[in-house]
Amino acid sequence: MIEILRLNHRKERDKRITTHLALSVRVLYPNAKIYYSGDKDEKFEKSIAKLQEKWGHAVSIEYVSNAKKLVVSKKSKGYVVVHLTMYGLNYKEKIRELNTASNLLIIVGSEKVPGWVYELADHNIAVGHQPHSELTALTLLLYELNDCKLKDNNIKSDLQIIPQEKGKKVIESDKQI
Amino acid sequence: MIEILRLNHRKERDKRITTHLALSVRVLYPNAKIYYSGDKDEKFEKSIAKLQEKWGHAVSIEYVSNAKKLVVSKKSKGYVVVHLTMYGLNYKEKIRELNTASNLLIIVGSEKVPGWVYELADHNIAVGHQPHSELTALTLLLYELNDCKLKDNNIKSDLQIIPQEKGKKVIESDKQI
Repeated sequence: MIEILRLNHRKERDKRITTHLALSVRVLYPNAKIYYSGDKDEKFEKSIAKLQEKWGHAVSIEYVSNAKKLVVSKKSKGYVVVHLTMYGLNYKEKIRELNTASNLLIIVGSEKVPGWVYELADHNIAVGHQPHSELTALTLLLYELNDCKLKDNNIKSDLQIIPQEKGKKVIESDKQI
Repeated sequence: MIEILRLNHRKERDKRITTHLALSVRVLYPNAKIYYSGDKDEKFEKSIAKLQEKWGHAVSIEYVSNAKKLVVSKKSKGYVVVHLTMYGLNYKEKIRELNTASNLLIIVGSEKVPGWVYELADHNIAVGHQPHSELTALTLLLYELNDCKLKDNNIKSDLQIIPQEKGKKVIESDKQI
């Protein structure tokens, strides 16, 4: 079981990044749960719900008002807590170990990450030791945990894209649309 | 040589996604050139310039007012043009072929991609056949082209992060800061 905690979402500033983050998690770990703290954002939640109504339900999203409480609670249930930060240890050295954990909680920060995150995390992990996109870091960590594969085929949907060299082809159940 | 064309950047809506895209390209292909069309955005360009002043110059960014003209011109110079779209062919089947090209131009769309992009592209390629983040798609394509490695170590910078289990450590030339 993989769960994500997106810290300190800011409604205006982060709306698109957090949406992209949810879409990225959705094709990499379709059954993942995504928690987010910061501003409660109905618009973000609705946009993902609407997309999943059309393209198949996969990830679930839950707002938490107290991120620290969630992390403490997950740790007490045996989750291994990973925090993505460019100051952490190289991700490549950690993949095998992380893959042995039954339950992972991956924390994705925003601009200012409080000290308790570094302290409570079992692993502070860097995907690149340069300023980076938290979305890129999460995407690459999940991809590596997934043995460099997507899992978009695992999403049950009435709509199905038929890959094309040019143009677009989508079928709905049995009929082409 | 890898070049990226970010289509139809919208100053307000896309500012953070395009910034994250540049950061992602920077650690995956530090010498890449990023073109963007749509709204000319000084703020975006300055934010990347400022970051690179501090952390090392790597990618270069250029605004183009006419994206189609750029693509036609690159094709005439022998570039292989790749367009990322969820309707295209599976990326995994194309990596080897793309890696034989001397010069690649990778087009990353935004919400509405005009028909000429599909037509002019030598390859329409999907990273996942589900609605996705164009940033995720680009990140994973570059990562695969890169044999699943980052190249952030190739960036020349006075600042260097020393990976830590907890906390942050950065050195500047010889002194710790």
